[in-house]
Amino acid sequence: MITKQIVLASRPIGMPVLANFRFENSELPSLQDGQLLLKGLYYSVDPYLRGRMNDAKSYVTPFQVGKPIEGSVIARVIESKSGSFAKNELVMGMLPWSRECIVEGKGLQKIDPNDPHVSYHLGILGMTGLTAYFGLLDIGKPKSAETVVVSGAAGAVGMVVGQIAKIKGCHVTGIAGSDEKVKLLKEEFGFDGAVNYKQTADIETAIAELCPDGVDIYFDNVGGEISDAVIANVNKGARIIICGEISSYNETGATVGPRPQSVLLRKCALMQGFLVSNYSARFPEGILQLSEWLKAGKLNYKETISKGFESLPEAFISLFEGRNTGKMLVEIE
Amino acid sequence: MITKQIVLASRPIGMPVLANFRFENSELPSLQDGQLLLKGLYYSVDPYLRGRMNDAKSYVTPFQVGKPIEGSVIARVIESKSGSFAKNELVMGMLPWSRECIVEGKGLQKIDPNDPHVSYHLGILGMTGLTAYFGLLDIGKPKSAETVVVSGAAGAVGMVVGQIAKIKGCHVTGIAGSDEKVKLLKEEFGFDGAVNYKQTADIETAIAELCPDGVDIYFDNVGGEISDAVIANVNKGARIIICGEISSYNETGATVGPRPQSVLLRKCALMQGFLVSNYSARFPEGILQLSEWLKAGKLNYKETISKGFESLPEAFISLFEGRNTGKMLVEIE
Repeated sequence: MITKQIVLASRPIGMPVLANFRFENSELPSLQDGQLLLKGLYYSVDPYLRGRMNDAKSYVTPFQVGKPIEGSVIARVIESKSGSFAKNELVMGMLPWSRECIVEGKGLQKIDPNDPHVSYHLGILGMTGLTAYFGLLDIGKPKSAETVVVSGAAGAVGMVVGQIAKIKGCHVTGIAGSDEKVKLLKEEFGFDGAVNYKQTADIETAIAELCPDGVDIYFDNVGGEISDAVIANVNKGARIIICGEISSYNETGATVGPRPQSVLLRKCALMQGFLVSNYSARFPEGILQLSEWLKAGKLNYKETISKGFESLPEAFISLFEGRNTGKMLVEIE
Repeated sequence: MITKQIVLASRPIGMPVLANFRFENSELPSLQDGQLLLKGLYYSVDPYLRGRMNDAKSYVTPFQVGKPIEGSVIARVIESKSGSFAKNELVMGMLPWSRECIVEGKGLQKIDPNDPHVSYHLGILGMTGLTAYFGLLDIGKPKSAETVVVSGAAGAVGMVVGQIAKIKGCHVTGIAGSDEKVKLLKEEFGFDGAVNYKQTADIETAIAELCPDGVDIYFDNVGGEISDAVIANVNKGARIIICGEISSYNETGATVGPRPQSVLLRKCALMQGFLVSNYSARFPEGILQLSEWLKAGKLNYKETISKGFESLPEAFISLFEGRNTGKMLVEIE
């Protein structure tokens, strides 16, 4: 059969553009024993994919030019020659941006097709929820009444971080890129305060005002000048979780700013880079806790869902323009 | 009686100069019950004192203009009206830069006057040795065959860090500021390699060549561009111990350079600011281990001793010019 896939046409220089992607028809071979034919249902678009588009060693191997992009996908089993998977089951895994694909079953995780929120497994009950959970709790170690600041606060990870911090009794301030997001964080996600960095000339002072007791934990999804401003406000013994640096992903070199080392020294503070995959052995614990909080109504959740396979490149690019609120997904009808 | 003391005449702007210090005669009151009259024997000069000369909140309170500088001093009890201390005993504590002084006994630690190396208690068996010990072992957690880089390697802390790393089976590279220091590190302190940063145009490449397996632990005493170069070479899971930033102590604002966050994220690396005082409960453990290593000949030690009370300001200033090798002290005959 013929399927359609999205390959990396060229490596982005700076901000990714549509021309970096190419739609291609591809002939799928016939199904072999042990293999599955999958049809994509939900495709996750995530900022970290930008790193894989560079030809540079990172924590993930680079995409190859002319080969399909891949990411987290929830797919339906259309045909199975594997004893482990039956037709119509739902699976999640690292899969190519292809309408259909043929895979061995290895590394796939089954998703209950009766789950009313199948797509949550790509977000709050998946990578982004677990990133928030382990990053905040394991590195941040929030204590009741401490002050937490989250950048990228209206993004998939940030909004979960802020809510978990509230569950832990912290004072929570979010940084986001629009007044709508600020309103949402305060009114629907229980943040104590939030600031629209695009409308704030002096973020350092804004954070100082929103965090009168200083900042004990900074969960950083964005980096750059926003982080400089938060770091200038940290308390003694602060923990800074480096989860993402979306402001720099499209930079061609290292970004330059005030070195944080002097603050870390004066404040005996910790700064830790963090990948959720380091915690894979503890994923079940995290998923269980996140599910319980969701069921108990303690976690609110929001997705931005774009429709249609053709919208995948555009949905990905929109992440860097902050056009998503919460987890960004593409749904194929 | 009249004694002589050194007061902060003015706060340094940038590099400290002799004019920031003033020698003053001071009348000591008569000794009260519970008090001791002390005469200074060894005065420790340490880079961190620079921070106290600024009028800025830091981890230690600022010195007051017109008041004596204070630091770690080993002194002899000249007269005692305290039941806890006898005449001629040696004590160590935070004391004013004054030839003689009157204190309550609180916070003083006794030093065995028969110790052949009394001054070591201001260095390898004191603050700087403990700084090396806890910073490297507790934050760095060196494993055998890992690669350790130390900046300020020929300083009081750096040379102990490198030697402990060798005891732990690591590959050790030092960064220092002269060919003599580089030679000393390699020939007398067992470093596997060392680089004179003043004679090296491309420190990043020099570190890469000296550390072919990358850098697992970076013990930073200096900050600035030297640190930028080391951080560019760190491995996955690296630990960066921020112990000192001597290159920036005389800067009037934050120094600017490549933000390390992207590297920390890509490498899941940790950067931790560190004060030895956080470990005060474990000082006995550290001193015992350092003493045993010294006795067993596993630790070599070097002091730069300046003679005479009058040389104190000059000795302090010389730290920022790298004129010391090992621990810098002033001895009063």
